[in-house]
Amino acid sequence: MKAILSRRSIRSYTAQPVPEQLLIELLEAAMCAPSAGNEQPWQFVIIDRRDILDEIPKFHPYAGMVAEAPVAILVCGDLLRDTHRGYWVQDCAAATENILIAVADKGLGAVWVGLYPRDERVRAMRALLAIPESIVPFALIPLGYPAEDKPPANRFDAGRIHYNGW
Amino acid sequence: MKAILSRRSIRSYTAQPVPEQLLIELLEAAMCAPSAGNEQPWQFVIIDRRDILDEIPKFHPYAGMVAEAPVAILVCGDLLRDTHRGYWVQDCAAATENILIAVADKGLGAVWVGLYPRDERVRAMRALLAIPESIVPFALIPLGYPAEDKPPANRFDAGRIHYNGW
Repeated sequence: MKAILSRRSIRSYTAQPVPEQLLIELLEAAMCAPSAGNEQPWQFVIIDRRDILDEIPKFHPYAGMVAEAPVAILVCGDLLRDTHRGYWVQDCAAATENILIAVADKGLGAVWVGLYPRDERVRAMRALLAIPESIVPFALIPLGYPAEDKPPANRFDAGRIHYNGW
Repeated sequence: MKAILSRRSIRSYTAQPVPEQLLIELLEAAMCAPSAGNEQPWQFVIIDRRDILDEIPKFHPYAGMVAEAPVAILVCGDLLRDTHRGYWVQDCAAATENILIAVADKGLGAVWVGLYPRDERVRAMRALLAIPESIVPFALIPLGYPAEDKPPANRFDAGRIHYNGW
């Protein structure tokens, strides 16, 4: 619960590299996500080449923080595994959220940078990484050791809760 | 991490009611989810009326477990708050996943029952609860104290991990 409640979008990172083992643990968390009929329609690309990371803010208007992130995880949807058609978006979002909670749990910082359903971002990311047509770049998660400290956000709004009807 | 790694879909529940305060804490976790531009396009309906719950398996082919769940949370998308158009699905999926992790953390059991994007399920749920057109029933989470015990699933697949390209 603590990681869920304290998680914030972190857009500033130190230069300290993130150990490979930690990245694998984040992806282990991602792959624990539920999916429609257990279809697991996800693929992940770890991006730590500086020249590749630096290309991303050139086509994505809200990805400036990638320029200082030591690494990013690209979550992709695998349309060939979307056997319960149309659910891959939700499944990949659940995997993405698992990564973000695991990031908070491990004292790292990250932010969810949306790609899908913006065609121009999806296409540019696909071109940058030579990703095949059946794989959809879904969301990018730049991450690192946080260089900013944010208190928990309190977004609770009792007005969003309804009982047994509208 | 423990809640993420041990979470399983639980479809069998004891008759013990879930305290109201716990339900509120689950929704607090839900509302901590990230969303596009912090749009928070979600609404929640707590359903604990037996007569309403019992209607759901009549129109949803995979909702048989609702008949024995003491309560369910319906996660809805609020299209009037989807200011970053098209991202509400991902935002609601992140909120849903937060609920499921919080459920596991608290020793409860739950399962993600998909509604959107299946039109017939969305329409039937909207009619059952008199939900307005601008609100989209997204996913149903039947929950309770677990009457089944499942070991953690190991879904980790190193073959899903790519480095700096495809």
